[in-house]
Amino acid sequence: MLIVMKHGASQKNEDKVVEYIKTRGFQAHISKGDVHTVIGAVGGKIIDPRDIELLDGVKEVIKITSSYKLVSRVFQKKDTIIEINGEKFGGKNIGIIAGPCTIESEEQIMECAKALSKMGVKIIRGGAFKPRTSPYAFQGLGEEGLILIRKAADKYNLAVTSEIMEISQIPLFEKYVDILQIGARNMQNFNLLKEVSHVKKPIILKRGLSATIEEWLMAAEYLMAGGNREIILCERGIRTFETTTRNTLDLCAIPVVKKLSHLPIIIDPSHGTGLRDKIYPMSMASVAAGCDGLIIEVHNNPERAICDGAQSLYPKQFKELYDKLKVLAPVCDKVIS
Amino acid sequence: MLIVMKHGASQKNEDKVVEYIKTRGFQAHISKGDVHTVIGAVGGKIIDPRDIELLDGVKEVIKITSSYKLVSRVFQKKDTIIEINGEKFGGKNIGIIAGPCTIESEEQIMECAKALSKMGVKIIRGGAFKPRTSPYAFQGLGEEGLILIRKAADKYNLAVTSEIMEISQIPLFEKYVDILQIGARNMQNFNLLKEVSHVKKPIILKRGLSATIEEWLMAAEYLMAGGNREIILCERGIRTFETTTRNTLDLCAIPVVKKLSHLPIIIDPSHGTGLRDKIYPMSMASVAAGCDGLIIEVHNNPERAICDGAQSLYPKQFKELYDKLKVLAPVCDKVIS
Amino acid sequence: MLIVMKHGASQKNEDKVVEYIKTRGFQAHISKGDVHTVIGAVGGKIIDPRDIELLDGVKEVIKITSSYKLVSRVFQKKDTIIEINGEKFGGKNIGIIAGPCTIESEEQIMECAKALSKMGVKIIRGGAFKPRTSPYAFQGLGEEGLILIRKAADKYNLAVTSEIMEISQIPLFEKYVDILQIGARNMQNFNLLKEVSHVKKPIILKRGLSATIEEWLMAAEYLMAGGNREIILCERGIRTFETTTRNTLDLCAIPVVKKLSHLPIIIDPSHGTGLRDKIYPMSMASVAAGCDGLIIEVHNNPERAICDGAQSLYPKQFKELYDKLKVLAPVCDKVIS
Amino acid sequence: MLIVMKHGASQKNEDKVVEYIKTRGFQAHISKGDVHTVIGAVGGKIIDPRDIELLDGVKEVIKITSSYKLVSRVFQKKDTIIEINGEKFGGKNIGIIAGPCTIESEEQIMECAKALSKMGVKIIRGGAFKPRTSPYAFQGLGEEGLILIRKAADKYNLAVTSEIMEISQIPLFEKYVDILQIGARNMQNFNLLKEVSHVKKPIILKRGLSATIEEWLMAAEYLMAGGNREIILCERGIRTFETTTRNTLDLCAIPVVKKLSHLPIIIDPSHGTGLRDKIYPMSMASVAAGCDGLIIEVHNNPERAICDGAQSLYPKQFKELYDKLKVLAPVCDKVIS
Repeated sequence: MLIVMKHGASQKNEDKVVEYIKTRGFQAHISKGDVHTVIGAVGGKIIDPRDIELLDGVKEVIKITSSYKLVSRVFQKKDTIIEINGEKFGGKNIGIIAGPCTIESEEQIMECAKALSKMGVKIIRGGAFKPRTSPYAFQGLGEEGLILIRKAADKYNLAVTSEIMEISQIPLFEKYVDILQIGARNMQNFNLLKEVSHVKKPIILKRGLSATIEEWLMAAEYLMAGGNREIILCERGIRTFETTTRNTLDLCAIPVVKKLSHLPIIIDPSHGTGLRDKIYPMSMASVAAGCDGLIIEVHNNPERAICDGAQSLYPKQFKELYDKLKVLAPVCDKVIS
Repeated sequence: MLIVMKHGASQKNEDKVVEYIKTRGFQAHISKGDVHTVIGAVGGKIIDPRDIELLDGVKEVIKITSSYKLVSRVFQKKDTIIEINGEKFGGKNIGIIAGPCTIESEEQIMECAKALSKMGVKIIRGGAFKPRTSPYAFQGLGEEGLILIRKAADKYNLAVTSEIMEISQIPLFEKYVDILQIGARNMQNFNLLKEVSHVKKPIILKRGLSATIEEWLMAAEYLMAGGNREIILCERGIRTFETTTRNTLDLCAIPVVKKLSHLPIIIDPSHGTGLRDKIYPMSMASVAAGCDGLIIEVHNNPERAICDGAQSLYPKQFKELYDKLKVLAPVCDKVIS
Repeated sequence: MLIVMKHGASQKNEDKVVEYIKTRGFQAHISKGDVHTVIGAVGGKIIDPRDIELLDGVKEVIKITSSYKLVSRVFQKKDTIIEINGEKFGGKNIGIIAGPCTIESEEQIMECAKALSKMGVKIIRGGAFKPRTSPYAFQGLGEEGLILIRKAADKYNLAVTSEIMEISQIPLFEKYVDILQIGARNMQNFNLLKEVSHVKKPIILKRGLSATIEEWLMAAEYLMAGGNREIILCERGIRTFETTTRNTLDLCAIPVVKKLSHLPIIIDPSHGTGLRDKIYPMSMASVAAGCDGLIIEVHNNPERAICDGAQSLYPKQFKELYDKLKVLAPVCDKVIS
Repeated sequence: MLIVMKHGASQKNEDKVVEYIKTRGFQAHISKGDVHTVIGAVGGKIIDPRDIELLDGVKEVIKITSSYKLVSRVFQKKDTIIEINGEKFGGKNIGIIAGPCTIESEEQIMECAKALSKMGVKIIRGGAFKPRTSPYAFQGLGEEGLILIRKAADKYNLAVTSEIMEISQIPLFEKYVDILQIGARNMQNFNLLKEVSHVKKPIILKRGLSATIEEWLMAAEYLMAGGNREIILCERGIRTFETTTRNTLDLCAIPVVKKLSHLPIIIDPSHGTGLRDKIYPMSMASVAAGCDGLIIEVHNNPERAICDGAQSLYPKQFKELYDKLKVLAPVCDKVIS
């Protein structure tokens, strides 16, 4: 932590700051510039920088050490590679996840699973518990949905990923699901993060709508601190002033995250744009930007989908995209298995 | 719902749209303009507008009816007034809540309660379970904290408000707390909202960092739909590009919310600005803008506070502000009891 | 400037950084922490911090000295007070400016001037050159508009303020206008700032829609660096994700600016909210937050206004607000003359 | 324009709205729903929707026709293709522009021109007039800079693009420059747009930092309305809450713009990210998303650059990227000549 004193701060001000940080376990290194004196505070515990900013004569306090450790590239230089049902995320590998927004019926999920499996997809997605802005909107099939997607996945040799919304759902997810998803709205539901961190399954952690990359990595740190090392970060669009698209997909998060962390990062172009015809270009762009995977909404009959049909691809469209991505990936020094 | 057809859309396109909405229970009202034909869809169930936007020839789909009902001024014209321990929120009344960010020790909370009670405050705040960005930061005293604040409140005849973070904490909050707070990060934790809606105590619902006013009212709708009618909305700053203050306090939310909803709205200038010296001007501004209450962080010794001391007032500062607000309120046609 | 080296950066990395800054005229002060070494760079010229961030082993570079000087409280401790036609801005004074968005006709501006003057207003606003999003929208009366507002002002003993959009308009503004306005869209039109800085009249500098407070003060620095010292800053709402109001009025900018700078800051609640019924509460809130003035759109017949009638007050409404503000100001330790 | 009446609005309210729009030249089409009556207003002139929103009984007013015409795909179905010095933008073509942020000296610009020309680049960029946040920062070489870049371009058979900041600079740009750039800060400098629209040279119009896509297209409409048809739109990052990168590059603007408009859209990954090591992935992503061109900062000696060296590629890095893009483009059904 660096404490920058105001131009013209008195020696007394400086002494008080030094005393303040010493009583909190820090050592003080003073360096006097032309305009500002800077006090380096070294070795103490976590402290709120604003507490010092309010002392007389202090201009600014600057934190240096990143708050995340386990998720950092400093802690682990090598890319984390996560393998699920033969599909790999991280390193050179791009993993693909596809499926409907919501599990609607046995027929629907079976048809989806069949179509996707036939194309070579190895992981299916599908929501059983749905976070909905309105209390009057369809809230998902619940456990019945999980049973149905498990059944479909088993029949077609797929792994299952689905969003968990609450601690009490953990036993259900341990039973039916292979990869847990933490949704954007729960990215800072810290109690959920703590409990889920003990589950022995990979976790997809979606970025919150207005979460900085630092906050997102801190949320991943909660999961790693609790013992789970198989975390896949998922960018799904941030909230900005632009309203043409539902969210603004922040693709530069890919190289930024890959520099800061060893964890794989995947993109959700369906939620990130909210529009079917934007999924193709944004999936292509994600791969070209170096992503480690994609999670794409595909529905056997999007026009009849209960939820988010407008951002779901038709199976035929997905097939074309999938084939194209397999051509694109090697050009970008990546592999889609 | 209004469906605007593209300039040059064919009769066939139009027919398909009409058929589509009819099979979903809507009636169609067609009106032909110079440039665009508009189809009014009336009487059907909830439908995702984007599903129709993807049909050929459709330019745009516009939703008309607000999604919230119970929280709306249309549903209830008169201001909801909520009274707790003699303190009123709503109508002409401005209710005041004060106390430390976090419950740290018996001594601390007793001192705070004593000082506040002496000034005439009737509701004390204090966190026992703390949402922290870092897993390594102090997470609150938990149940012990609730016991301590209850004890202090009972001694000094105060009501207690504290943040609930998880469904399993409900029994504790029913036992120790008078007003439950839902924090900004949990504003769209829909499972929590549903469960808390059955608790027979008033709820303070904070606005999410990047929640629109419509989403915030929809979250309140979850609470009302579940049976709770004593909801206090709390604006605490939104996330914008400006970094001088921690968040940007959206004071215009006060007149906006009061026009749309009958629920009281209070302001949290401590979190809204993140800086002690901004609490005074923003509290004054909130009252002048017509707010129904304030929740302010006050600590007996902010320099020693474990958490958010930098945005806490000294008791003496709070006293000055409180006295000033009592002079200001009547000028703004409001009352602080 | 402080250069924070990465954990594990080599001595060679460090040496290279030191050499780099020395060849650019800086002295280096090294302080070694537990985790990070920090190099203080003192005394050199302006340098882009990112140039150093790209050197091997560098974690982060932190600028310390603010880039603005003349507008800073460090440069001038005392509030700048600007007096125009007997109306004062700054210090304890709240100055009021009112008038229509656009000058439409002699009749309209005469009626407005008459009504406002009768109420005691001393400065009238009115646009002659209008920045319009669409090339097909009314672009203002131009010089004719300035002639008309000058005539009206002279008749009713008012000062005139109007927005200048281009360098070539300076002679016109020198002739007809008492206070020049730089609009939000031109806040970083640096050529305009440079030329206008030589005009010997006060300037109202509006904050850009997405300008940080630092950028805004830097724009004011352009004006002061050019020799103009009579600058009034004007907050008029920033762009955020919230769409209920046209912009989000950042009232906390008032105490923030007053701490950083000696310049007066006024609020434009008409553009800041875009809605007539929000002008009253936001004007009240601005005064309570400590603003030095208000600029409010008033039209003799808002329903017939060519432009922005929806955010203009009726003269009668303005009168009520004006009277109320005069009661409010002393409660907030301010004066409306 | 559609006017939605409130639930429970009276017949009198409705009549008043109908009368209001009729006196402004509109025809009224009334359609009564279960909850809301909707009045379609057809055929009148431009009107501010908020004027109607303030009438009694009105819930909401919805504009239908886009405000831009000439830039719209409705006006022109076929992609506009712009060719400059053999380099094409639009349709299947990806045009490349490269060069330093700022023209610093004859030696520098000659070296850059030589290196780029050797690689096959046909258009060089370089700033002579620089928009700088601080009045104390280097403001560019001015006309001398334009003379130098022209000389270099002529020697190496390149076309020149440079940013114009002010109307009075038009003659200089007509003399020395082949493509005019309008910078992000001037996107809504409407006077500049109007004057530049008469220049008979292509224009690159950068998106403002906080401009919506609609506003950006409206700014292009100013240029087309003035007679210029050779407009290249340039996305260069928008301002959001995320601070890791200088701006957030909105790559989804590519498919959005290409659907709404026939104009080519290029990407500026240098300003869009602000960091050299993000240029490669974001350039790749831009091409994969379907862009019509790239403008990239390349400096012969970035470490010594006066300005923005941190976001400039070394010539060698640019060469690698350029070669890679030529491999990538055909995979994305595009051509780099």
